[in-house]
Order: sequence, then C-alpha cells, then structure tokens
Amino acid sequence: MFIEERLKKQLDFSLEIDKEKNIFRQTHLSGHGRNENDAEHAWHMAIMAYLLREHANEEVDITRVILMCLIHDIVEIDAGDTYAYDTEQQKSQKEREEKAKQRIFSLLPEDQRSELMALFDEFENAQTPESKFAHAMDNLQPLLLNNSNEGGDWKEHGVTAEQVYRRQGMTKAGSEVLYELTDRILQENIRKGNLKE
Amino acid sequence: MFIEERLKKQLDFSLEIDKEKNIFRQTHLSGHGRNENDAEHAWHMAIMAYLLREHANEEVDITRVILMCLIHDIVEIDAGDTYAYDTEQQKSQKEREEKAKQRIFSLLPEDQRSELMALFDEFENAQTPESKFAHAMDNLQPLLLNNSNEGGDWKEHGVTAEQVYRRQGMTKAGSEVLYELTDRILQENIRKGNLKE
Repeated sequence: MFIEERLKKQLDFSLEIDKEKNIFRQTHLSGHGRNENDAEHAWHMAIMAYLLREHANEEVDITRVILMCLIHDIVEIDAGDTYAYDTEQQKSQKEREEKAKQRIFSLLPEDQRSELMALFDEFENAQTPESKFAHAMDNLQPLLLNNSNEGGDWKEHGVTAEQVYRRQGMTKAGSEVLYELTDRILQENIRKGNLKE
Repeated sequence: MFIEERLKKQLDFSLEIDKEKNIFRQTHLSGHGRNENDAEHAWHMAIMAYLLREHANEEVDITRVILMCLIHDIVEIDAGDTYAYDTEQQKSQKEREEKAKQRIFSLLPEDQRSELMALFDEFENAQTPESKFAHAMDNLQPLLLNNSNEGGDWKEHGVTAEQVYRRQGMTKAGSEVLYELTDRILQENIRKGNLKE
C-alpha cells in the first residue's frame, strides 16, 4: 500500500504512542479505582490546564501548555513510569528518558521531530511560564485523585508530608493560587491522618 | 476547607470527568490489546489532530480542534459509549447525550459551561472546518488501531465494508488526503479478508 513518506512517518508515530496507554502510574482513579495510565493522566492534565489557565502566575500560550501536557510522558513508553518518591529509580531516569526521546520522536518527519523534542525539553527544564504551569497540572491532577481517595496512594507508599511538599515548588512556580489550594488540601489530609507528618 | 466558589466548580468538574476513563469502547489497543477507553481515545485524537493538521481541507484553528477532541466524549460518562454500528442504540443516543451534556457541563462556572457546551455542539453539528477535522480524527484514530490488529474489531462485530465506508464521509469532509489514506487502508483490509464486502 503506497503512503507518501511524510504521512507515513506521522502515522508510524501516531501508532507508536498508542503504547503509552499501557504505562501505568502509582495514582489510582477516583472512586478507589484501578491504577491510572499515562495517556489518561495526560488527557486529564490537558483539560485541567485549559480550564484553570486563569490561575497561572503569568499569561500562558495555552496551546503550548496543552501540547506539553499531552506529550510529556511519551518517553515513558521506553523508560517506564518513575514514581515521584522513588529516589533509587530517579537516578537513572534522565538517561533512560533521553534515550527514549531520541528513538520515539525520531519516528516523525524532521520538522515535527524537532518541534516535539523542543516542547518536551521545555517541559523538562521548567523555565518558561507554559512549562511551569504544565508542571502545576502534573502535580495537581494526581493530587485531586489521591485526595478523592482519602490519600490512598500516599498511604500505600508511606509517603510523608515533607516529601509531598518538596514537589509542590513546581506548582507554586506555575500558580500561586493552585499552590494555596494544594496547601489546604495537604493540611486537611495531614489532619485526617491520610498523610503522615 | 475553604475554596473560592469559581475554583471549586472547576475542580468539581475536573474530578467528575475522571469517570471518562471507565467508559470503554469497542476498539482494541494495538498489539491485540484490551479495549480502549474514551479518555485514551480523546488523548490520542488530540495529538493526531496536531500532527496531521496540515492535511485538513481548510485551515483550522488547531486549539479549537484539540479541545473538541479532548471533550467530545465527556457526555458518555452518563450516556455510555454507543458503538458506531449499533443502529438500535443510536436511536436514543442523541437524547441520552443531551441530558448528560446538561448535567456534566453545568458543574462548571457559567462562562466555561457555555463555552464547552458550544464546543461540544459544534463538534456534533460538524459544519465548521474545525469540527469536520476533529471528526476525521474520530474516524482515523480507531481505524489506525483496528488496521494494526488485522481488523479484529470489524470481524468481532461482523461489520461490512459498506457500513465502514458510510462513516467515512466525515473524514472526507475534514480531509481529502486522509480520506484517500482511509480508502487505501480499507481496500487492503477487504483484500486480506479482514473486512467483508
């Protein structure tokens, strides 16, 4: 079957990323559901980013934020999900993800490969208003689910409030409003005994 | 815990749509995987829309296309997934989805409720360049998966080529290029006996 080269590359990449639906995270769906996968997490973050954009610290190009949310975990197809509180796994995370980035985005036509890699790097570096806000979503989305499940994911892994707070600097950089919200949610979970001090 | 009213509504909606991850479709993931859910489908469509936008018949506002892709199945949280080739279920689909639309989007602050409902309606009516292209993605994404699985979903449901072709008018309206591609994929699947004539 003949398919023009550029379109074929776009389709090859589109089919490849289907595998992201098989990368499961530590977060559980609301209603004490099953583990969430990366594709679901990315979809959820993208919609939240759009709806909550008014709370970003700086004005953001929302299309770029949404795209970062959608693609930021594609590397985990090869590199796997690294749990936020697994310090051992985190040591090799950067290297594993860099290799994955090269392989997967290289399926695309050259211009789109460069564009998506740059977007991924921008997210990773977390220096721009867009990437900071995308990171705020990356924190808030699982927090929302975990809070709805009485902190089940923290309990399961024995995570401490200090560990959770350490990650929320990213949220603060993206949105003071959502950081304040996060703080209130965490304090309530500490009070309820869902998150140990 | 005090949360400002507008933000609370945004969070209530954000948590509610988590349920879309439990709405399973007839399509199976690549590699003869499990059934796909609506959130995964929406995520996949949104990325494909961005990567394939150059093939749209008319110039599109890609942010609006992506948003339509992301939200078009939220109503299925209440209304359930209606299989493309289930004519019995389709009779009540419109009514079920309308009711769901009212309930779910009404969780949002008024301005965002109106905006997302309008986007949903625009997708449903399929008259604008953006909604036509989003529909092309709604067709192409499962086709790509089903093609990678040797037409397993068609075989399972005894779907005919005529039925499949009838749905592809939407793809043609959004993208002649992707309609041609679809036609080649379908012809190949007919030849291979994956799709009956």
